[in-house]
Amino acid sequence: MTDTIVANGKIYLVGAGPGDPGLLTVEASRLLQSADVVFHDDLVSCEVLALIPEQVYVENVGKRCGQTRVGQQQIHALMINAAREGWTVVRLKSGDPLIFARAGEEIEALRRAGIEYKIVPGITAASGAAARAGIPLTDRRVASKIVFLSNRQCAAKCMFDGEGVFSADTTAIIYMPGSDYERLAARLGQQGLDRETPCLIVSQATTADQQVHFARLADLAAAPRFAAPVVLIVGAVAAFYEHQIRGRAEVHRLDFDLELAGA
Amino acid sequence: MTDTIVANGKIYLVGAGPGDPGLLTVEASRLLQSADVVFHDDLVSCEVLALIPEQVYVENVGKRCGQTRVGQQQIHALMINAAREGWTVVRLKSGDPLIFARAGEEIEALRRAGIEYKIVPGITAASGAAARAGIPLTDRRVASKIVFLSNRQCAAKCMFDGEGVFSADTTAIIYMPGSDYERLAARLGQQGLDRETPCLIVSQATTADQQVHFARLADLAAAPRFAAPVVLIVGAVAAFYEHQIRGRAEVHRLDFDLELAGA
Repeated sequence: MTDTIVANGKIYLVGAGPGDPGLLTVEASRLLQSADVVFHDDLVSCEVLALIPEQVYVENVGKRCGQTRVGQQQIHALMINAAREGWTVVRLKSGDPLIFARAGEEIEALRRAGIEYKIVPGITAASGAAARAGIPLTDRRVASKIVFLSNRQCAAKCMFDGEGVFSADTTAIIYMPGSDYERLAARLGQQGLDRETPCLIVSQATTADQQVHFARLADLAAAPRFAAPVVLIVGAVAAFYEHQIRGRAEVHRLDFDLELAGA
Repeated sequence: MTDTIVANGKIYLVGAGPGDPGLLTVEASRLLQSADVVFHDDLVSCEVLALIPEQVYVENVGKRCGQTRVGQQQIHALMINAAREGWTVVRLKSGDPLIFARAGEEIEALRRAGIEYKIVPGITAASGAAARAGIPLTDRRVASKIVFLSNRQCAAKCMFDGEGVFSADTTAIIYMPGSDYERLAARLGQQGLDRETPCLIVSQATTADQQVHFARLADLAAAPRFAAPVVLIVGAVAAFYEHQIRGRAEVHRLDFDLELAGA
């Protein structure tokens, strides 16, 4: 025991973006260089982790499909203890820490412990996926709003509550859609979406392993199951997806007349 | 007239993020250094514009409140002509170019003109605002989904169609909410939101001039009107906002028991 007052270190809740290290923010990039400790999730890309200098202590505290490696309360304790050592701690989360990433719980824990923290937002998977697929997320002609949902089914949780949120002019983005596309498509149909609604499955967005598949809602059940992380983009904007067929670019038939658009 | 084939330059649709230059992506930051021409919107922050080297041709093609400086078709022509000169063109948009920023129309125009382009996503205002206000956008205890809406009223357009999208467990983010908070609050109430719903107004998020105001929906009409850009965050997560009163941090009463949260 000692009476010496130890200045706490600071904790940065940092978004790693969707995968491509070029999509880290300038601030996140700097913080990875100056951190003493990095606690990261499973889905942070190898390319981003490779940027962390060798002397930094790096720990994967991720959980995937219910197989909890480190519990949420343990993550809080790890972060708080590290900060109390006076270290600069980066809590690195794939995408944006504020979207489907339990930042609320971590913020609460840090406030209660009296630890100083800062949130550094990141590019969320939806934006990365849409950018690389060449589609907008809104378009004043066909999509006036965006809905983000998560469909974590790993822990046998029931499907997301999408009651009322789907419509012809909404872009719905489903994070972690799972592999039961048949049930998912049935549910989207029940909630009022047309069978012809364009859907885009984007796996490992913005990385070298990115895969993109276009389907109509009626054909979603038969779509390939790609490696996680996956986002499913549902709505008219998905028809902007331009894929390469026999060397030429083909834009999917748009369900509206682009010529109608005003200046 | 000449038969010489001129190699076209490439156009980058780039997100400038919410304002703080540290929230530019690494790729956006590099592109601003290597561009020949930058066409930017009104809302791109001065701090970001200051990063552009002196020799780069920079043009503000923004429009605000119906006072169109340069029409959308003219913007397309400006970009395409610049690319045909062989220049590297950055089309710089505040936030994320894919969210409420007409990227769809610009992508269409570039495809039709056969110009090569790349989309570089940016941190959207919602994430920047939430990060600096210290609130998450989702929380598995109180907010399972996010809705992004825009309320551009400048050109006397009617209010957004939010029919069915609001609920107690939804975080709604309203971009450009305008100044008629009385009408906005009435509408949110009509669409089923409780009078006690927490609301957070964030102006010029992540810049030195950022202002944040917390209100309950019942008091929103009396809230201050801050300078644009403004985002309005509506939902239980807004109660995480920690504001400084008489030198101590006070967290707004949360409408739920945080202790109920599982590990």
